[in-house]
Amino acid sequence: MDYALLLSCFNEEHGHNAWPRQRLLHECLRAAIRDGKLAAGTRLVATRALASELGVARNTVLYAYEQLASEGFVTTDRRGTIVAAAAAKTERQPAPIPQAGLSQRARNLRRTTISASIGLPFVPGVPDLASFPIALWRRLLDRAWRSMPSAKLNYGDPSGEAVLREAVADYLRASRGVVCEAAQVFITDGSQSSLDLCARACADSGDTIWMGNPGYGGAMAAFRAAGLRIEGIPVDEDGIAPSTADWLERPPKLIYTTPSHQYPTGTVLSLQRRMALIDGARACGALIIEDDYDSEFRHDGPPLSAMQGLRPDAPVLYAGTFSKTMFPGLRMGYLVVPPELAQPLSVMLAQAASRGRPAEQLALAEFLRSGQFALHLRRMRRIYRQRRDTLVQLLEKHLGNIAEVHGASTGMHLSLRLRDPALSDVAISERARDEGIIVNALSVQTVQGESPWQGLMLGYAQVPPAQMEGLVKRLAAVVHLFAYTARRQNER
Amino acid sequence: MDYALLLSCFNEEHGHNAWPRQRLLHECLRAAIRDGKLAAGTRLVATRALASELGVARNTVLYAYEQLASEGFVTTDRRGTIVAAAAAKTERQPAPIPQAGLSQRARNLRRTTISASIGLPFVPGVPDLASFPIALWRRLLDRAWRSMPSAKLNYGDPSGEAVLREAVADYLRASRGVVCEAAQVFITDGSQSSLDLCARACADSGDTIWMGNPGYGGAMAAFRAAGLRIEGIPVDEDGIAPSTADWLERPPKLIYTTPSHQYPTGTVLSLQRRMALIDGARACGALIIEDDYDSEFRHDGPPLSAMQGLRPDAPVLYAGTFSKTMFPGLRMGYLVVPPELAQPLSVMLAQAASRGRPAEQLALAEFLRSGQFALHLRRMRRIYRQRRDTLVQLLEKHLGNIAEVHGASTGMHLSLRLRDPALSDVAISERARDEGIIVNALSVQTVQGESPWQGLMLGYAQVPPAQMEGLVKRLAAVVHLFAYTARRQNER
Repeated sequence: MDYALLLSCFNEEHGHNAWPRQRLLHECLRAAIRDGKLAAGTRLVATRALASELGVARNTVLYAYEQLASEGFVTTDRRGTIVAAAAAKTERQPAPIPQAGLSQRARNLRRTTISASIGLPFVPGVPDLASFPIALWRRLLDRAWRSMPSAKLNYGDPSGEAVLREAVADYLRASRGVVCEAAQVFITDGSQSSLDLCARACADSGDTIWMGNPGYGGAMAAFRAAGLRIEGIPVDEDGIAPSTADWLERPPKLIYTTPSHQYPTGTVLSLQRRMALIDGARACGALIIEDDYDSEFRHDGPPLSAMQGLRPDAPVLYAGTFSKTMFPGLRMGYLVVPPELAQPLSVMLAQAASRGRPAEQLALAEFLRSGQFALHLRRMRRIYRQRRDTLVQLLEKHLGNIAEVHGASTGMHLSLRLRDPALSDVAISERARDEGIIVNALSVQTVQGESPWQGLMLGYAQVPPAQMEGLVKRLAAVVHLFAYTARRQNER
Repeated sequence: MDYALLLSCFNEEHGHNAWPRQRLLHECLRAAIRDGKLAAGTRLVATRALASELGVARNTVLYAYEQLASEGFVTTDRRGTIVAAAAAKTERQPAPIPQAGLSQRARNLRRTTISASIGLPFVPGVPDLASFPIALWRRLLDRAWRSMPSAKLNYGDPSGEAVLREAVADYLRASRGVVCEAAQVFITDGSQSSLDLCARACADSGDTIWMGNPGYGGAMAAFRAAGLRIEGIPVDEDGIAPSTADWLERPPKLIYTTPSHQYPTGTVLSLQRRMALIDGARACGALIIEDDYDSEFRHDGPPLSAMQGLRPDAPVLYAGTFSKTMFPGLRMGYLVVPPELAQPLSVMLAQAASRGRPAEQLALAEFLRSGQFALHLRRMRRIYRQRRDTLVQLLEKHLGNIAEVHGASTGMHLSLRLRDPALSDVAISERARDEGIIVNALSVQTVQGESPWQGLMLGYAQVPPAQMEGLVKRLAAVVHLFAYTARRQNER
């Protein structure tokens, strides 16, 4: 291994001239180990020899080796320093979907960087699990089990248990301004299953669906799997913004929206836009899918009521989930359909779907009816607002000169827009991932083409306030590093 | 209402000349009430007047009115006999799927007579729910809940909990001869969800799938929803029997089979056919979906091992469910895929699916590992074999001259083939439904064209032996009535 060559290549490729030598060497070696250029088991050249080869102080090399050891990339024995076995390249890039045996539609699923780093800080969409009243839930479940005759173990109503549909309808009417009867409410296995159902029951292969660009990857996956043609519609500060040309030239069969808190940007769809979207959909006979995934958490003032209830005949399929308000592993969501679609859909489900989980459904109905759900929501709202406040303050303090907070008024995540267009949100996101911080880049969540949104998503619901400052500082260090490099490159 | 005309029309239409007059009048009035010709609230003409109008004895009319009253079709007051309010036509025909707002593929779902009469005797596919050890299951669930850290409330592995995948792999290797590692096992929400997954992950819209004719309606629904082109392959006494022409002229991408117990006929696929199917599939690059839905209950001798394990490289997607071995409301099944498909599928699922229900998965793994599942299976095998024996004896005693039992060696249902081709299994099935007995007709479960199978499906798992004789006698009365009528028509 020619270390001098390695170093000069790294330097050329990454343009980190501004770094101190010890940092440069450290980064260069780390990259070489991750890329596999320095394979596991390779013995690194002795510090003294490398220092002389590169013409640097021995301390510079010692520093780099120590950093690598502290990060687990190398181990040391009596004879020196060896590349660690587990240091092999970890998947920073999304795993490509292997092709063999899969259908074209399965292969069409977009690779995504939104990985399953589900327990790490700032992963979006995860509630504060430690605050869920698990003992209460266990009691409700056990009570439901005890009350059930064995006949309830059978296949259940494919539309959901009547008592739960009633309870959900009551809740949505009272809290979200959704105008509905229980017969319009369908219990599903969560948002993904609701979107699947919408895409397949209300559109055919080849039909056009609009979604905000950037948009929610899970929804894209559902629509791709259903063979729909996805058209990305720009999202601006007021939310999804279709142009007249969009309406005329690529009229949709379905429109997917997250009006309460656009995913991923966090933008709230303005009332004017909501009305325009409903009018446009009615004019062209389209149905709007209103995915109200985290609307329960509105931190500044009362929530805007759902689009579904804005007009009596709004052509809206309203989807919600208990994954955010309770916990994701519950796998329960709901879909509210227009009255005229309720009967067709229930007949269709009776032919094509099976449903069960009677105890979970009864326990959930009781959780809603008893007022415990509302109590839990109020408690979580307080917790999330506090975390949001803390995070916003910290971001402004440590990154306020480089980035601005957006979409923090609602929900469980915010976005951090990068002011300097030369900064790559993808590069920052990947580098932060190395630090154990998951801040998904907005630009990779594009539906098609280039995304005008460069920035990072930060889910704060599950991050304890005590850890927040440390995490933001680490993130800030990464962002500042890239900003510094970008400035230097600019000056050259 | 001209009763004489009503009676003569009924007689002409149904050709029931052979019936005694009192029966004819009773049937005719019942049909008129069901059809709405005699609306709820209508006062029937007095018995004496009707007797004179029709030229029959008053006792004949009295008998008919009494029968109608005992069945709830009419009520009586001081002034006479009135058509009851609740006697309005109940849905005997499957509800048509209303068209409005649904996609073409949703509308394409076949109407089916397999209704949701889920609690009634002889409904197939329902285990003996009263025998499920519900208290034990509750304890396992509660223990799982108590052992879980709150982090487990998060999204789970989309392929299923590792401990459950291991437990299922162990069980299938030991009990079903399935050759697999845990990495090939995917936990699903039950058979319907497994079939959905197979259809979408391994075939594209327009691809051809074979299935036995007659075949399982739930599978047809899944394949239709996925846009597949379904080709029905004849089923004979040895199971699904594709011809050389089938292989050459309409080669499949997927082949759906229920080799352990063909659904609905009950036929067991012979070993020779299994081999031929595997060879054929390999030759044309097709995948076989082996739906082993009730193979655990083999009443005569040990079960044939699964096709999946017959050859080391059998191109088989093996699907099973806990709906039959435990209870349908559990919504848990599994899919075992060939090794080379395991990784692509798990990557695909990570992009497109959400999974959770950690407590249920852990409790189920414990149920399997502790040996309680095997114990439960042994107990249910004894119960089902006894019910099978009782039912077969009764059918031979009461219907042996008209029909023969088929497919009773395995599973939870048998089929009763009608010897006389003039007998309509659909008419018998509909009439039996009026008697509260659900015996689905084989001929309506055709995939395409006419089904060569005329007969009835009887699920016996959930029918207590003490009720069996009464039910079989009622069924026999219906069948004999149709047979008698058919003979009389033949003689004329």
